[in-house]
Amino acid sequence: MAASSIKHCLAGDVPAGSTVTVQGWVRTRRDSKAGFSFLTVSDGSCFDPIQVVARAELDNYASEIQKLSPGCSVRCTGELVESRGRGQAFEIQADSVEVMGWVEDPDTYPIQPKQHSFEFLRDVGHLRPRTNTFGAVTRVRNAAAHAIHRFFHERGYYWINTPIITGSDAEGAGNMFRVSTLDMANLPRTDAGDIDFGKDFFGRETFLTVSGQLNVEAYCLSMSNVYTFGPTFRAENSNTTRHLAEFWMVEPEVAFADLDDLANLAETFLKYVFEAVLAECPDDMAFFAQRIEPTAIERLESVIKAPFVRVDYAEAIEILQASGKTFEYSPEWGLDLQTEHERYLTEVHFKAPVIVLNYPTEIKAFYMRLSDDERTVAAMDVLAPGIGEIIGGAQREERLDVLERRMDELGLDKEGYDWYIDLRRYGTVPHAGFGLGFERLVSYITGMSNIRDAIPYPRVPGRADF
Amino acid sequence: MAASSIKHCLAGDVPAGSTVTVQGWVRTRRDSKAGFSFLTVSDGSCFDPIQVVARAELDNYASEIQKLSPGCSVRCTGELVESRGRGQAFEIQADSVEVMGWVEDPDTYPIQPKQHSFEFLRDVGHLRPRTNTFGAVTRVRNAAAHAIHRFFHERGYYWINTPIITGSDAEGAGNMFRVSTLDMANLPRTDAGDIDFGKDFFGRETFLTVSGQLNVEAYCLSMSNVYTFGPTFRAENSNTTRHLAEFWMVEPEVAFADLDDLANLAETFLKYVFEAVLAECPDDMAFFAQRIEPTAIERLESVIKAPFVRVDYAEAIEILQASGKTFEYSPEWGLDLQTEHERYLTEVHFKAPVIVLNYPTEIKAFYMRLSDDERTVAAMDVLAPGIGEIIGGAQREERLDVLERRMDELGLDKEGYDWYIDLRRYGTVPHAGFGLGFERLVSYITGMSNIRDAIPYPRVPGRADF
Repeated sequence: MAASSIKHCLAGDVPAGSTVTVQGWVRTRRDSKAGFSFLTVSDGSCFDPIQVVARAELDNYASEIQKLSPGCSVRCTGELVESRGRGQAFEIQADSVEVMGWVEDPDTYPIQPKQHSFEFLRDVGHLRPRTNTFGAVTRVRNAAAHAIHRFFHERGYYWINTPIITGSDAEGAGNMFRVSTLDMANLPRTDAGDIDFGKDFFGRETFLTVSGQLNVEAYCLSMSNVYTFGPTFRAENSNTTRHLAEFWMVEPEVAFADLDDLANLAETFLKYVFEAVLAECPDDMAFFAQRIEPTAIERLESVIKAPFVRVDYAEAIEILQASGKTFEYSPEWGLDLQTEHERYLTEVHFKAPVIVLNYPTEIKAFYMRLSDDERTVAAMDVLAPGIGEIIGGAQREERLDVLERRMDELGLDKEGYDWYIDLRRYGTVPHAGFGLGFERLVSYITGMSNIRDAIPYPRVPGRADF
Repeated sequence: MAASSIKHCLAGDVPAGSTVTVQGWVRTRRDSKAGFSFLTVSDGSCFDPIQVVARAELDNYASEIQKLSPGCSVRCTGELVESRGRGQAFEIQADSVEVMGWVEDPDTYPIQPKQHSFEFLRDVGHLRPRTNTFGAVTRVRNAAAHAIHRFFHERGYYWINTPIITGSDAEGAGNMFRVSTLDMANLPRTDAGDIDFGKDFFGRETFLTVSGQLNVEAYCLSMSNVYTFGPTFRAENSNTTRHLAEFWMVEPEVAFADLDDLANLAETFLKYVFEAVLAECPDDMAFFAQRIEPTAIERLESVIKAPFVRVDYAEAIEILQASGKTFEYSPEWGLDLQTEHERYLTEVHFKAPVIVLNYPTEIKAFYMRLSDDERTVAAMDVLAPGIGEIIGGAQREERLDVLERRMDELGLDKEGYDWYIDLRRYGTVPHAGFGLGFERLVSYITGMSNIRDAIPYPRVPGRADF
């Protein structure tokens, strides 16, 4: 018979009294003196494993069932009955327990039914989704990702896959990974002795993208509402708990929109995603609140309920300066806000999510729209309690002459951006977009403070996959 | 007032008689002798532009409206009325036409209201989504991508983002892009004189992934039903119309599944995606059928209706040999099927989509499940009329001893796969998965035969972005 997911069995979607088959991995086995074994079996479909009661009368009771250990895979068939014990509503009275895969050496199986440190689990990344914590992270991450796609799809935004391998650097910064097929042991040289990237795969030097924004602007200026959701890369050797070399970014870009429209979009977006996760993953979120971050649910609920405060960067600096608080970095007009400043604004001063608007021109990128007095650009950051900046965005400079002047002032090579500039020649319109680091969002939702625990594969320098 | 999407205006979602604002780019302008101008305006939300009727009484009629040319951006407000002309149901009687952005030199604007060659449009990739064809490709691609996510989400599959930068090669083949931050002009060397990848970003040699399959198997063996949908890379210098260096792949992986289950999943999946595109993009698909590929709609409909034929590879070879047809490559047991063979099977012999099962061991990868007589592995290809192979998949070798023996026979370095082998030690289960090239799918759906026209950015060797 076809197997049922444990989620459906536990949720009451399958009528009590039916015969069901479930398949999964043993979490625990407990033998009762009365001649039973209690197995808990998980298939990843929901937070809880299901309890399977195996009677001593089963053919393979002594030969197999009593030898089951955590991690063994089983296929259990029996009657789904209302559970008499505490906790779960349903359990299975097994008619058969088929062992599909043993654990070679139960004593060295890394995922024992006890608490493991996250650091240890990063070293057994291929098995850590079998734990409560990383099963929950996987389900929440999935729910958030689908909510993001749904949010934009429902509003008529097109998902655009911007190039991963790129010839340009969206931020004008360095710290990019080079992509090459040149034989490094035997590099081709030009007559001048330089490396001849003309012989490389794309006939030029290429890198991994740091952002899809510039590319997606082209689609925005044809299709109006678009977004990217794909991997981006930063070769920053900041081995902190907050940065990744490879991470997924969500970048909507909206035509005929200004900074106010963008702030409204960001607020609606965050609330939508948080609501979806709370609705779809209540058990997982309850686990995070109980074991990882006590405020995990509350803080999402408060972001959902609270109107986001809008405040000008200049006013934010005044608030910080008047706070009487001693910061590690002194707040001053012209300097970027630090996390300590952001958290003071949202957690102490406003006690609500805050959108800071109109940052000084010098600390922001060339593509952000210049204000009339040219001291500020139409940039915004969305700050959330408990983390600080979670979204950054800007209205783009849509005026050809201003964009070219800004690029000249910053000494940027306009040739590499010819198509980007070109967009301003042909029916340019106001447009705006933001960027959200997906792993940072997952880290915020789950309370998993080390961002390496918000990705499926705990990549760290020195170990690319697991 | 808030703008309406042209899609909503044309679909009758906005009541006739309302005052609406639309924003977009001018496709055409025609001046009537009776003192009107007819503009067609597109915002990308649907295939058709909307007609805007501008009266000579408007303030800026002579100064601006009569100077509008294709590509200019406008904001038009007026009454939405039922159209008297043929074609569309609604048009706008404008009370105002605000010009937001001019076209610098109308004569050199690349997207004129005439037919352009696809080759020409690849050279102006940043503007080609303003054409009928690439607007339609964008909407169909988006609809297909969302249908893929929805299909798996509805069935309880988790979306797993597998690593893009990887230390291993999933296919045991070469042709990978190297990812590095080493200074190529000044490469670090080991004492032996080799390049010292220990000094590279990840402390080892790393590449762009060719497939997320091996990684996603780890999640499959914890969470049961999972899939990847992300970019993959092949540094193959086959500059054909069918291959890309960077493309998106869909890779579901299902625990407790065998090859039959996988074939059923692939059939259900393809039908679901095609149904969604036909339902969501009827105008775009009508355009493809009219202008690009006459059978575009029919062939999707026939795939949806037809039960897919299952045939053993051995039988497929016999059918080909008995066909009496002269092929460029002679069909023979032990050789891979060529496109000509695949198309004969699906278009001529069976006149239906075909799933070929159980390929010879020697032509398939090490991770595919060996049959009892060891001559074949549990691999499958799904063949669609008009294109040939569209999906390739396999049941995986879940038996530790067989997998290790196969890797030894093929001379693979087991150390790089330690975690992959490890999965077979800890509650291994039968599992199976397939891979689908997303651009190939879009190319098939739209009939855009050059795969460079199925990607948002027409990347070609020598030009990484546009």
